[in-house]
Parts: sequence; structure tokens; C-alpha cells
Amino acid sequence: MSFITSAQDHAEMKKLANLVRIMNIQGHNPATSGNYSLRSKTSPNMAMVSESGIDKSKFTEDNFIPVNYQTREMDPEYKSLGKKSSDETDIHLSIYQITDANCVLHSHMLDALLFADLFGKEDFAIIKDLELLKAFKGVKTHEVEIKIPMFENTQDIRALSETIKPAIMSSPNNYGLILKGHGIYIWGTSVEEAKKHLEVFEYLFKYYINKKRLGV
Amino acid sequence: MSFITSAQDHAEMKKLANLVRIMNIQGHNPATSGNYSLRSKTSPNMAMVSESGIDKSKFTEDNFIPVNYQTREMDPEYKSLGKKSSDETDIHLSIYQITDANCVLHSHMLDALLFADLFGKEDFAIIKDLELLKAFKGVKTHEVEIKIPMFENTQDIRALSETIKPAIMSSPNNYGLILKGHGIYIWGTSVEEAKKHLEVFEYLFKYYINKKRLGV
Amino acid sequence: MSFITSAQDHAEMKKLANLVRIMNIQGHNPATSGNYSLRSKTSPNMAMVSESGIDKSKFTEDNFIPVNYQTREMDPEYKSLGKKSSDETDIHLSIYQITDANCVLHSHMLDALLFADLFGKEDFAIIKDLELLKAFKGVKTHEVEIKIPMFENTQDIRALSETIKPAIMSSPNNYGLILKGHGIYIWGTSVEEAKKHLEVFEYLFKYYINKKRLGV
Amino acid sequence: MSFITSAQDHAEMKKLANLVRIMNIQGHNPATSGNYSLRSKTSPNMAMVSESGIDKSKFTEDNFIPVNYQTREMDPEYKSLGKKSSDETDIHLSIYQITDANCVLHSHMLDALLFADLFGKEDFAIIKDLELLKAFKGVKTHEVEIKIPMFENTQDIRALSETIKPAIMSSPNNYGLILKGHGIYIWGTSVEEAKKHLEVFEYLFKYYINKKRLGV
Repeated sequence: MSFITSAQDHAEMKKLANLVRIMNIQGHNPATSGNYSLRSKTSPNMAMVSESGIDKSKFTEDNFIPVNYQTREMDPEYKSLGKKSSDETDIHLSIYQITDANCVLHSHMLDALLFADLFGKEDFAIIKDLELLKAFKGVKTHEVEIKIPMFENTQDIRALSETIKPAIMSSPNNYGLILKGHGIYIWGTSVEEAKKHLEVFEYLFKYYINKKRLGV
Repeated sequence: MSFITSAQDHAEMKKLANLVRIMNIQGHNPATSGNYSLRSKTSPNMAMVSESGIDKSKFTEDNFIPVNYQTREMDPEYKSLGKKSSDETDIHLSIYQITDANCVLHSHMLDALLFADLFGKEDFAIIKDLELLKAFKGVKTHEVEIKIPMFENTQDIRALSETIKPAIMSSPNNYGLILKGHGIYIWGTSVEEAKKHLEVFEYLFKYYINKKRLGV
Repeated sequence: MSFITSAQDHAEMKKLANLVRIMNIQGHNPATSGNYSLRSKTSPNMAMVSESGIDKSKFTEDNFIPVNYQTREMDPEYKSLGKKSSDETDIHLSIYQITDANCVLHSHMLDALLFADLFGKEDFAIIKDLELLKAFKGVKTHEVEIKIPMFENTQDIRALSETIKPAIMSSPNNYGLILKGHGIYIWGTSVEEAKKHLEVFEYLFKYYINKKRLGV
Repeated sequence: MSFITSAQDHAEMKKLANLVRIMNIQGHNPATSGNYSLRSKTSPNMAMVSESGIDKSKFTEDNFIPVNYQTREMDPEYKSLGKKSSDETDIHLSIYQITDANCVLHSHMLDALLFADLFGKEDFAIIKDLELLKAFKGVKTHEVEIKIPMFENTQDIRALSETIKPAIMSSPNNYGLILKGHGIYIWGTSVEEAKKHLEVFEYLFKYYINKKRLGV
């Protein structure tokens, strides 16, 4: 039996599609890159993942494909229509399996790549001592150290989607992971919270990059 | 008795709310950060301070909370509605106690953080010899030196709101104070003047930062 | 006999004119610079090349001039009206002669000039190991090396339009060539693909420039 | 007898006012700075100079004041209304006296200040060997060297307006002069040409600044 979108899920899909179009204007999706998803509020184990290859300036709520994040199976009706969810769907599914995220954003923002380059071969990038860290869920003071897991880029997304699990689980109060030379995955318990976390990461990355440039 | 908004104050609140939304587009308020206030023109000792946690893209004149800047008490009616003014309200109140400001803006602009980093552990940052300094109230020539007080960031805002007082009073023709790794407070005798001072600070910070990068 | 625009070509001309106006807002055409073209889908050996000296904020489908890319002759009717295609028309024509491009964009984006400066006197600039390379037509992995031919600027466009041919043909999976101190030519098999390639080049150039600045 | 605006001049004033509002959005006029003028096409020796202290987001054709550029006298009717042209009016008037400019723009763009800093104590800044130089009136090749006169900032505008004359006259094919730590004056024989020259200067300044940063 195929997936029926509930009114609740539909409202979130519209909200996320709107954010995707805004993020596209801001440069997060050069050349149709980037992918996005939601955890269903009404269908157990289901996520709605963005369709492959869509120009993000034209992205709407109709460009989501239902996928089961336990079985990793796409909804059969969408499959029979020849539709395909993002090549990086498995990363989204792993995040839903092991965190309480309800929304995942994947941006190609240059600042994430440049920020990661500051940490060379390290397994984690570190951000600390800045007021805006308090905008991360659960963080109450700027005197905190957030560790962001980093991974080498690969075309074997299925393998990568397993590799990332222990790193994500080891790192409390973090809501992102970086693929070097590729981009960043960011999540939250709602579209609004994921967007807030995106703004925090972007701001902190810019601070670290620009401070390095100043040499102070 | 609770606070009744006068027509005069209401007009200023609309004007400031409009500026808040513009500043949000310009990047001054990542992730719902930033706070704003006005001194009442009609109610003695009252300030209208922005509500805590509002997404600044949706900020309106209804998101101000009346607070007495001598007693530091919120208006009881707003309190009974469960509303709360910004966590940093005390900074605003201190500025109204010791200056002739009628409007205070708090921005998280990255350029303020980076500019402050140029001055290390100094108590004051210094800007001088630039034509745009003449846009500060009371400044008539570019051949002037403006000292901007800087403070370490803290979560003890009540204590900080006392610490800042002597530094602000010691520094004539200055309309801003920097919290390191956090942001900047900027003020003026009107919404228009505060906005003008914001534009001067932003321009001067960018000049100093970029000149340092050029190494000339 | 003079050129009659087919409905198919007209639709593409409208699409490209729209992209030109967007690129102008993004800074690709300072001071009326830049030029653009399409290969006709219906008239053999014909290309539609942008008119000389047009302010790109006002560019429309009426600002294309038909030129035969084998004979290099402008359509006689347009010639008799005193119209003139871009001074750099010959570059466009050569690209249509030796590639399968159907759309050519010429941008003056600063990032192309700065990126080229990173490679000094080399004949080719190299980009590699970045996920977004996969957005180039025919590229399936980030583990690839793309060589972009570079040429010294010259006012002898006719000669240059011959010089570029062997370099373009020697370099598979590349869709651009750089004129140092001048700008970049980018192409694709459709307006959409040329735009996608433009976004990839711009993103990759920014990455290389900013990485050099970071010194990491 | 007071100045009557001709239909011809009025059309140009509307065109320039529109450019002023666009330039304001682009950051040329922080904190009400910047000033603008036109040479009258119909009244001998008259220029229309922008009013002092106007927020440039609200600038219209009504914010011009007629001034005689030979006698340096403001139109008496405007004077009696308490209106005042820009503090820097004398610079505009000198440019009309000694060049064929019909439009003068004064921008505070940061890039002009940073570019000037690259040339230290020199009397002229130099730009050369870039394709976009051809967008300057009268320039036919990129193989050219343009010398831009530079002056120390001063509050004695009357004296400065004399000092600049020999430098402007000594430098062919140049359409700008820089006041260090202050901004740039740019001119052309029409509003359109002045705008084109502005775009060339801005682009070239950014190139030189960014090339210096890259260290190549």
C-alpha cells in the first residue's frame, strides 16, 4: 500500500519547501545541489526526502519522496512513476534512525568547506566561547565547546551512512556533520529549529574563517 | 496600574519594528538573536524592550514589553500574560539611566566581533581619521578619536549592566559598546539617529578589518 | 534571404535573455560588458549572438543578431539596420564550430580573474577533488581533475578565436575557457546546462581563492 | 531672478535621483553621506547639486539645489527657503569648470578607501592592463595605464576645490578623484556614462584589493 500524505505532514512539507527556496537564493544549492527531508509525524518509520536533481529555485512540496528509514525502501507508487529520491538519501535516513531530528538540511555552503579545512585531518571541528552557541538547542552558556564530526567525501553513500553513526552519537548538543570538500548536514526537532541551527553554524563558520584571515 | 501606550510611543514602536525587520535581512540577528528598545516619550522612567526569543523577520510593534528603567520591574499586566522581555534587558535599562539615548539597538554583526579582536585585551577600541566619523552626533571633523568601550562576554547580565556604566560615561561622543564574542549595543536620541550610528559603526569596522587584511 | 526566427529559437532567446538580466544583477556584466549566444535549433550553421554595447539590465530577446558560424557573416537585414553583434562574436562562433555547445555565456566575474592569477603563466588552471564537480555534464565522481584552458587577453579577437580551438579540444569534460584580466566563456548543451556550469565554476573559483587566502 | 527648471533638466534630475536610490541600496551612502550633481543643459553656468543631509533612500528630484558654478552662488529663492546644498558643493563646481562632465557622483564606497591605501603617499593611483578599462570613455584597449589623482582628506573644501584642478587636468582619460579616508568623485558626460564609470572603478578597485590579499 502506498503512502498517503497527512494534513500535518503536508503543512511541514510546504514549510520546508519554502525554506529550500530561500536557502537557494542564499547560495546553499549551487547547480541543483543540496537535499532536504522531514520525518513523518503520522506514518511510523517514514521520512519524506527531496527528489534527485531538482533546480532548488523551483522546489515545492511535491518534490518529496516517501522512504522508510528502517527498511530504506522508497514508496512503491513513487518508484513506479520513475521518481527517485536524492543520491544521498541514506545519510538522512541514518540521522532519523539515531537522533530525535524531525528535519534534516544538506547545504553546500562554501563556509562549511573552508571551516573544515581549518581543522586538517582532525575527526572533529571545534567551536567554543561565542554567545551565539546559546541558539543551539540545550545550550545555556557561551562557555561551552561543541564538537562537529567531519568525514572524508566519498561516492559510497551507503557505507558512509553507517560510518557516521557512532560519531554523531558520541557528540552531545551537536546538530551537524561535515563532509569535507562537499558540504554540511544540519538537523533539528522542527523545520524552525533546523533553520535556527543552520544560521548558527553559518555565523560561527564565518567568524572562525575571518578570524583566521585577520591573523589575530 | 498597567502601562497604556501613547500614540507618540506607538508611532516610534512601529518605526523601530520596521528597522528591526530590515536589520534582520542584513544579518544583524542570526537565529532570533538581537534585542531592541525605546525610551517612552510620555511615561516617566519607562522603556519598551523587545520580547525574548522572537524571530526578527516577524517582529512587530506588539513585541515590545514595558519595563521601568529605575525599578527594573516589568509591567504587571504583561507579566501576568506570561510575557518576558529580552534576557539582556538590564543593559538597555542602564543605558537609559546614564545617557540621553531614546533608542538602543543590539546587533550580533560579525564585523563587531572581528573588529574587537583587533584590539586584544584593551578596554577600548579606537577609530579615528575617517570622514564618516562626522556622521556621529556632535562630531565636526574627521580629525577625531572615538573610544568604544569593550567588555568580556558573561551570562551575568545584571552585574554587567553595572560594570558598563563608568566606561560609557568616560567616553564622550561615543554611542556604542562591544561585548566580545557576542555583539554591539548602539544608541541615539531617536530611531533615525541610532540607525545612522549603526551604519557608521558597521562601515568603520569593515574598514579597519579589511585594512588589517590588506596589510597596508 | 534574411533569417526568420523559429518559434523554437524564439523560446530559447527569451530564456537566455532572462538569464542575462539575472546574471547582470549578480555582477557578471559591469558597465555593459559580457556577451551571450545560442546555436539555432532550426537554421543550419546559424548562431544568435548578443548585440554590442547593450546595458544588460535592459537585455531582451530582441538584442540577438543572427550570424553564420561557418562563414562568420552577419545576417544582411540586421547589417542594413546598422546593428552589430558583440566585438567578441568570433569566440562564440569558434565554440559552436568545435563543440556540441548550444549556449555560450561570457561573464566578467572577478572570481575568474583572481582564480586565473593563482596559476600564473600556466596554460591550464586545474580544479579537482570537490563534490560539486559532479554537476559538470559527464562527471560522475569528485575524484576527477578538470583542466581549464587560459589565454592572455588581446584585442585581436579573430586571431584568438583560432588559438583557442586546440586547447578546447584537448580537454575533455571542460566547459569553460579563461581570458586573463578579462573574463570567462562558459558553455553547455542548453541554457539550463550552461547556467549550471556557470554556477559550478563560480563556486569552485570562490573555494580556491578563499582557501589560498586562509593559507591552509 | 530665480532658477526655473527646464523640462530637459527635470528629466535628468529624475534619472539621477533614481540612480542615487539604487547606489544607496548598494552601500555607497552610509549614514546620509554622499552627494550628487548635474550640469544644467539649458541654463548657462548652472549646476543642480544635492541638498545637504538627506537620507539617500528618500532622495528625489526635489532634493537638488541650483548653484552657479562660476560665481559659486546658490539660487536666492532656495537660499531664502533655508535650503543648503551639500557641504562639498565646491568640489562639484570645480569639476564643471574644468572638464566636460555633465554629471558628478560622490560615493563613500569602502573599496575606494582601501584601494587608495595600496598606494600609500603617492599622488596618483594606477590601474592598467584590464579589459574593463575599455568601458571608460575614449579607451580602446586594455593595454593602457589610467592615473587617478589622490588627495589627503580635509574640512577646508573651498581650498581643496582649487587644489584638485591641475591634477584633474594633467590626467587624460580619467573620470575620478579619490579623497583618502573619505571617498571618490566620479564623472561622465551623462548620468549613464557616470554610472558606467562608477561600475568600472568599483570593479577595478575590487580586483586590485583582492589580488593584493591573494599575494599573487
